[in-house]
Amino acid sequence: MNQAENKSLQKLANLKRQHKGLINLMPLQTGGMLTDAAKEALMEFGDGYSVCDFCEGVLCNVTNPPIRDFVQELLPQFLGCEVATITHGARETKFMVMHSLAQPSDSILVDANRHYTTVVAAERVGLNVIEVPHSGHPEFRVDVNEYAPLIKKHAPKLILLTYPDGNYGNLPDAGRLGKIAQEYNIPYILNGAYAVGRMPVSLDEIGADFIVGSGHKSMASAGPAGVLGMKKKWEGIVLRKSGKYSKKDIELLGCSVRGVPLITLMASFPYVKERVQHWDEQVSKAQWFSAELEKLGFTQLGEKPHRHDLLHFDTPALYEISKRVRERGYFLHKELKERGIWGPQPGMAKSFKLSTFAADRQQLAFVIDSFKAILNKYS
Amino acid sequence: MNQAENKSLQKLANLKRQHKGLINLMPLQTGGMLTDAAKEALMEFGDGYSVCDFCEGVLCNVTNPPIRDFVQELLPQFLGCEVATITHGARETKFMVMHSLAQPSDSILVDANRHYTTVVAAERVGLNVIEVPHSGHPEFRVDVNEYAPLIKKHAPKLILLTYPDGNYGNLPDAGRLGKIAQEYNIPYILNGAYAVGRMPVSLDEIGADFIVGSGHKSMASAGPAGVLGMKKKWEGIVLRKSGKYSKKDIELLGCSVRGVPLITLMASFPYVKERVQHWDEQVSKAQWFSAELEKLGFTQLGEKPHRHDLLHFDTPALYEISKRVRERGYFLHKELKERGIWGPQPGMAKSFKLSTFAADRQQLAFVIDSFKAILNKYS
Repeated sequence: MNQAENKSLQKLANLKRQHKGLINLMPLQTGGMLTDAAKEALMEFGDGYSVCDFCEGVLCNVTNPPIRDFVQELLPQFLGCEVATITHGARETKFMVMHSLAQPSDSILVDANRHYTTVVAAERVGLNVIEVPHSGHPEFRVDVNEYAPLIKKHAPKLILLTYPDGNYGNLPDAGRLGKIAQEYNIPYILNGAYAVGRMPVSLDEIGADFIVGSGHKSMASAGPAGVLGMKKKWEGIVLRKSGKYSKKDIELLGCSVRGVPLITLMASFPYVKERVQHWDEQVSKAQWFSAELEKLGFTQLGEKPHRHDLLHFDTPALYEISKRVRERGYFLHKELKERGIWGPQPGMAKSFKLSTFAADRQQLAFVIDSFKAILNKYS
Repeated sequence: MNQAENKSLQKLANLKRQHKGLINLMPLQTGGMLTDAAKEALMEFGDGYSVCDFCEGVLCNVTNPPIRDFVQELLPQFLGCEVATITHGARETKFMVMHSLAQPSDSILVDANRHYTTVVAAERVGLNVIEVPHSGHPEFRVDVNEYAPLIKKHAPKLILLTYPDGNYGNLPDAGRLGKIAQEYNIPYILNGAYAVGRMPVSLDEIGADFIVGSGHKSMASAGPAGVLGMKKKWEGIVLRKSGKYSKKDIELLGCSVRGVPLITLMASFPYVKERVQHWDEQVSKAQWFSAELEKLGFTQLGEKPHRHDLLHFDTPALYEISKRVRERGYFLHKELKERGIWGPQPGMAKSFKLSTFAADRQQLAFVIDSFKAILNKYS
């Protein structure tokens, strides 16, 4: 064994997170923090293929642990759809729907605020991606009425809307797009990676064909895990079975998330189902926090009044500081961390995203005071 | 909330494994039991997207935790290859290679002992699967020399060998197939889901183009997780980047196993790297166990002398009992469980698979005595 390899092995000896216990404002993380029930399930089902103890051939039919009830009863009810399944995550879910419904060189129409993985999933299928533009800085709004002329022009095989998007937390008029999709008879994917598990959302009410959720982003689950809900009419296409193995889903390669992320998704589900009922409190908390940061000279991007905990701020005063300190943009990360706060991507000082989902008002008041103190310290 | 839903929710309240602490002989599970280090990492990184705390865009480049070192240094060295990456599991890995190298209606040549997911992955790509036959009952041997005439006949885009297969634990002559693959200049996938992490195996020595491993099956990892090793010449094809996002792998949809299974894979790796050095002890333990069960009238299927811990037995005496007891085939599961043993799939009594990998000789002696006692009890 050479020295470099030995050093690399040693690094694996004690894997620790640097900021456990900090106030967490990182948008990727605030909806994925485990419940106590999920932490217990994590230890119970940690070993390899534990969830498959009593498998008789198909993950979604396992009754012990109660995966079948979760997938066939609880998830469809929660997502407001007829049929659901479990996946490795939102990106893998988008890929499986695209791969089932479209052929290479077909077109797909998506909003300009789409996650990068929407583009990469389409690329993996070989699709041509057309974007419905947003309104640009500072609101970046997507007007779903703009889908109609582009549908007429490009005859896409699928349309997709990101609800909300992960950059600005904007919530476009998903229900209006449902009507457009039905009018043009075109399958409609709602990417709800930041909605499902945070706020009430129903495929049926919106009139979409598919709804995509993320366990680790918004359902208090370990990563990676995802959910897919759909209208029954798509079951035979997206959940089509192998010609050789009649019980096995082709798009899931038999079974998808066959391990511990699924158990945390299930263990947290009763809590997640309950928490979406308190979404109005989350929204008012986010609006209050945003207004307080705007008083410091920050500018909240995206829709106003804001209707989601994911917030994006332009912070020119912090950027000015970063230009004249030794640590450059990293000064902000350092200052916040010293105060027990974890949020903006390290290095970012000009513009960054925060999520108020996991912090309470007292913690957020401390965050606001901390930004004030940092501005004062360097003024 | 209706009554059925309420009942389903209640089932999620206390998720427990029924046979924690039993002697585990289940082939799917014996190589995936977590190390203590992995259990600690599981709790540390349980929350959602924790492994991505310090992500700058690509999972495999994250330095804290040290994913980059693991993927770019340790894994290639361990797999005997030039380039490696991490995936959701062996089946997803096979799909990504097939999807990168072959087009719908192309042919692929695989051994008749292949896992069902090899067929389903090929089906997902739209490939025509041709099988190299095995020798049938009782040995089910695959003679890799039979690949050559079938390569000439069908001009497949890829060949795949399962090493060992999951039904009989046979280890065909993978190195000989490497020479054949090179002679015909055809890419060669070695599916080592039951090899990588249990026994020494090197892509370079075998002369394969791709090597596939499973974290949850054989690398002491939580499920699902997998690894892929390859020759550098395939990097630009299988790990090709998005046209729009130049750092993002198309086949990985940006990032694959972005969560806690990856951390357990990494935390267990130093132990796994060491344990493969003791493979000869595993083989002699398996051979001894097999010989002892044959003394009871069971017949070991697959190669003899056996060279892997995965064993398959025909058990006519147990089958005879199952025909005359109330529990039918489930009597065996019940009898073994009462003795603290977990192994044959519940319901199986005529023929079943066992793995000796996780049990020590003392435990296996107890298993042998238990089979004796069960046979006596019903004789």
